[in-house]
Amino acid sequence: MKTLIKGTIIPLTEERDEFDGFVAIEGNRIASVSEEKPEGYFDKFIDASGMVIMPGLVNTHTHSSMTLLRGVADDLPLMDWLNKEIFPRENKLTSDMVFWGAKLAIAEMLLGGVTTFNDMYFKMDSVAKAVSQTGIRASLSSGIMAVGGQEAIDRAVDFANQWNNKADARIKTMLGPHAIYTCPPYFMELLVKASNDNKIPIHIHISETEKEVDDCISEYNETPPKILNRIGVFDSHVVGAHCVHLTDSDMDILKTKDVYVSLNTSSNFKLASGRARIATMEEKGLNLSIGTDGTASNNDLDMWEELKWTSFVAKSFGDSTVLPAKRTLQIATIDGAQALGFSDMGTLEKGAIADLIIVDMSAVHLSPRYSSVSHLVNCVHPSDVRHVIVDGKIVVWDRKIQRFDADETLAKVKEFAKILA
Amino acid sequence: MKTLIKGTIIPLTEERDEFDGFVAIEGNRIASVSEEKPEGYFDKFIDASGMVIMPGLVNTHTHSSMTLLRGVADDLPLMDWLNKEIFPRENKLTSDMVFWGAKLAIAEMLLGGVTTFNDMYFKMDSVAKAVSQTGIRASLSSGIMAVGGQEAIDRAVDFANQWNNKADARIKTMLGPHAIYTCPPYFMELLVKASNDNKIPIHIHISETEKEVDDCISEYNETPPKILNRIGVFDSHVVGAHCVHLTDSDMDILKTKDVYVSLNTSSNFKLASGRARIATMEEKGLNLSIGTDGTASNNDLDMWEELKWTSFVAKSFGDSTVLPAKRTLQIATIDGAQALGFSDMGTLEKGAIADLIIVDMSAVHLSPRYSSVSHLVNCVHPSDVRHVIVDGKIVVWDRKIQRFDADETLAKVKEFAKILA
Repeated sequence: MKTLIKGTIIPLTEERDEFDGFVAIEGNRIASVSEEKPEGYFDKFIDASGMVIMPGLVNTHTHSSMTLLRGVADDLPLMDWLNKEIFPRENKLTSDMVFWGAKLAIAEMLLGGVTTFNDMYFKMDSVAKAVSQTGIRASLSSGIMAVGGQEAIDRAVDFANQWNNKADARIKTMLGPHAIYTCPPYFMELLVKASNDNKIPIHIHISETEKEVDDCISEYNETPPKILNRIGVFDSHVVGAHCVHLTDSDMDILKTKDVYVSLNTSSNFKLASGRARIATMEEKGLNLSIGTDGTASNNDLDMWEELKWTSFVAKSFGDSTVLPAKRTLQIATIDGAQALGFSDMGTLEKGAIADLIIVDMSAVHLSPRYSSVSHLVNCVHPSDVRHVIVDGKIVVWDRKIQRFDADETLAKVKEFAKILA
Repeated sequence: MKTLIKGTIIPLTEERDEFDGFVAIEGNRIASVSEEKPEGYFDKFIDASGMVIMPGLVNTHTHSSMTLLRGVADDLPLMDWLNKEIFPRENKLTSDMVFWGAKLAIAEMLLGGVTTFNDMYFKMDSVAKAVSQTGIRASLSSGIMAVGGQEAIDRAVDFANQWNNKADARIKTMLGPHAIYTCPPYFMELLVKASNDNKIPIHIHISETEKEVDDCISEYNETPPKILNRIGVFDSHVVGAHCVHLTDSDMDILKTKDVYVSLNTSSNFKLASGRARIATMEEKGLNLSIGTDGTASNNDLDMWEELKWTSFVAKSFGDSTVLPAKRTLQIATIDGAQALGFSDMGTLEKGAIADLIIVDMSAVHLSPRYSSVSHLVNCVHPSDVRHVIVDGKIVVWDRKIQRFDADETLAKVKEFAKILA
């Protein structure tokens, strides 16, 4: 299967910001990117003239099945919200619910131009099945807490080994130790051993709240990054979510150890967790990427919104030149792909995996158009995403999910919501 | 003309958050709001079952014609951006450009559920004509700077007197002294006299940047609110935009003098102006409302996005219970209407002006739905707005502008953009 797409190409990896040209796809790879029409026969031609062709967005931290709890409770103190509203409902979640919740999340992400996501939750077999069926790409981690003991680690390792590189290699896996306050040092050491023995990366929450940092210091006399580093967590490939309350020396550790940071800005604001020092992290050259967090806390999986939050909050420390639009798009695509260990992805280049999106720039809120790159960060909404291709296959066409029945998903979730209300 | 609408009603003014019922419109007023279907004949029935019916959003600070400069330059230091990119282009703007730029802004706002906006710019006759033709409601102010002298004040007064209550009373007017740093005290005194003599409200930028506050203190030994208050500005009805850098005693003055504050949060973040202390303002009981600012600085007129920014940034000071969803909706509707001096507006109540919107809640990103009020602040996008009614007339139907040609507007703006690029 060979497909040719004509449109405005946002290369992100070149000096120039955009140019009109052609992207050719063969199988699941980009065969060429060029200004001139390539020679040869194509099975399908997509005329996206005037529209933008760019790499799909990579959401590097979420809990997809929490769509089931979207808006069930808001505007509460964090601990009341967790203990009285979220945890009791999570106890009711069946594998079936987790499956359909993940499908709903996947529908929302695909329609919004997200082609890859990084997930941490429980009953992850259900999420893996949802990823397999729907055509999206994902990195999946079973959440682990010390209360589960060694058995929880073993189960997470089994899940990781079973699903890694499955679904045409659209699935990768990690281990998901929740955080230092639910996985104390003795347990984190077991986790590190499992990660090393099995060569599995790690997905973890780091310094999300002041309380997490304060408790860690009063208990262990070290910040979360310092103790995680000392235990050896950062010797694995690590994606650290949130990273709101980092000292300068915490940042230096994350930089030295090549830890990948997932910024979850709007969630941090809504839950009153705080404002991550994005500008300083960027200045220090940390590996930044962007995640939405789960819909119980955000309350959506809109990466465009999150791009804007990330870029604007970075600037809010006093310098309006930090995280300009192009750089913001890079951390939401190529840098996110690298954070999740997907190589040859997140770019529009010959040989790259064909995960790309076509964005319709004709809406009133995108007029006039001096710079597509500026609009993509500052003005584009999920509703502007027209077509989505993952692994060379069309998964959204003309704003409609192609490979599963979105209405069936909505109906299932509506039934589950009656149980969870 | 009598219209009946069936749907989920968000009253905002009652204890209960939402209920299924009927809104009847007669002429330009709401005739009834009820759970039971009202008796009598209706010319038109709108079945919005499952959809939300709520008051239209009120955008209390923008510069609408700046749509023409959307994204023309971003990510620059503020003074470079203004002096090298924005001001030289504004010098090129003709009355015709300002007219079509305003129409583009109005199209975007109407499609996004904004039924009223508060505008400050120059060549405001063009904006007034655009408001007249398009069916939206607005409060319009000619921007005034001291360089224009008394003549600028006189022209602004003439504009205000000429257009106030025109276009079926959809237009109100204010005077727009730009800010204390462009209108020093001697000039602001002339302005106050004009406001008092003609009973015209005032629309002004207050304490937007640290530099504004620092310069004001070093020049006059007082913060902007203190000097404006001493000159008598706050004895008029005043809408103060931004209010990012307020001391506690500044806030007390704004409270005592009943000044209306327009929060423009995302603009303040993008331009690195700072983070307004929304939580403290709310605690002190200031008159808060929400504005998008102009599209050169934001870069869109999406009030839904701005609701989320306002609510989340309010929480980011450490208390996740501040500005809950319902309160946020109130400040974006009824409180905004009051800020602009429109009475009997911004609510769904018998006798209120019929400015209302119908929001389709069927999208994937709004599923499941435990609370419509939560979704309206946390998840709804402009693309979810289905129908819009201003002054009893349908101005958007099924996501399409009804009373003017949006494509003609897009084409005109595209031509102007070639001149402004």
